[in-house]
Amino acid sequence: PSRLPGYATHQVGVAGAVFDENTRKILVVQDRNKSKNMWKFPGGLSEPGEDIGDTAVREVFEETGIKSEFRSLLSIRQQHASPGAFGKSDMYVICRLRPCSFTINFCQHECLRCEWMDLEDLAKTADTTPITSRVARLLLYGHREGFDKIDLTMEELPAVYTGLFYKLYHKELPENYKTMTGMD
Amino acid sequence: PSRLPGYATHQVGVAGAVFDENTRKILVVQDRNKSKNMWKFPGGLSEPGEDIGDTAVREVFEETGIKSEFRSLLSIRQQHASPGAFGKSDMYVICRLRPCSFTINFCQHECLRCEWMDLEDLAKTADTTPITSRVARLLLYGHREGFDKIDLTMEELPAVYTGLFYKLYHKELPENYKTMTGMD
Repeated sequence: PSRLPGYATHQVGVAGAVFDENTRKILVVQDRNKSKNMWKFPGGLSEPGEDIGDTAVREVFEETGIKSEFRSLLSIRQQHASPGAFGKSDMYVICRLRPCSFTINFCQHECLRCEWMDLEDLAKTADTTPITSRVARLLLYGHREGFDKIDLTMEELPAVYTGLFYKLYHKELPENYKTMTGMD
Repeated sequence: PSRLPGYATHQVGVAGAVFDENTRKILVVQDRNKSKNMWKFPGGLSEPGEDIGDTAVREVFEETGIKSEFRSLLSIRQQHASPGAFGKSDMYVICRLRPCSFTINFCQHECLRCEWMDLEDLAKTADTTPITSRVARLLLYGHREGFDKIDLTMEELPAVYTGLFYKLYHKELPENYKTMTGMD
């Protein structure tokens, strides 16, 4: 830890990749206010004190009307000096969510279109952003080979000095590594 | 993206887990200013505009005198309202680094002790934080089974609207998923 006083330097954005394993469909939107109409995942900025997974679920619901639940963290992007970030750096996290509802009712202010798209179509289309395309391929890999190949799962652990709990995300450990005391 | 103006809500801290595969030793420190003397990874806050991996390498060098290079991102922690964070949320990222030098020359202001510890000893000791212990086990799993099991690798991709580049971290994709156009 630094001896300097802490101050906030980053805004944190979260996107929700809502994937339905049964139909292989993924929830995608097109922004209303961008020049190119590219498919991407719904998402937005974390509110102060809000957990990553909660931001993803909230933003997906606000933009698309779809209810979902958090499954894992898939990817992290760091970017500096992006427009609209007011000179701050930007940490953008993509979560995998499971849909709990399927009827789209999207926000007309934010979105031009919203649909359930076949995941392989999203992985192959040119009408998307590089990050969306990459995450679509990651999901396709996970869908075929097992999501344990791509998921960072979440666990709550106690903080030492504060008595608070924090959420930790990493590749899931095999059982015998989770409780290693006395392991040889 | 939200229609609200963006503002910074998070500070970003980075820890560097410097692991030497040849000796199975990991670089650990004990903070000078904490009540309990627990082994942990060196690290600190990102400076504005600084990339995650650069923060890890810089903080490791400042605290321990060890030179290292970025290999991967291992884990992310989100915590709210931690003391010293001035009411801001805290995103803490743990990176895997490879040592480029081995002679410790640690910062007396920040550290009470600094040493190269056998990774399995760190994974088993009680004199550490829950997060350090967890990451030690993750590294041990990676050392035995292959770091591709635990690493989030970094790639630079172009941003669509700005012409800038950003850094994206996720589980490495198999080659045939990286370039999927025309894949069947």
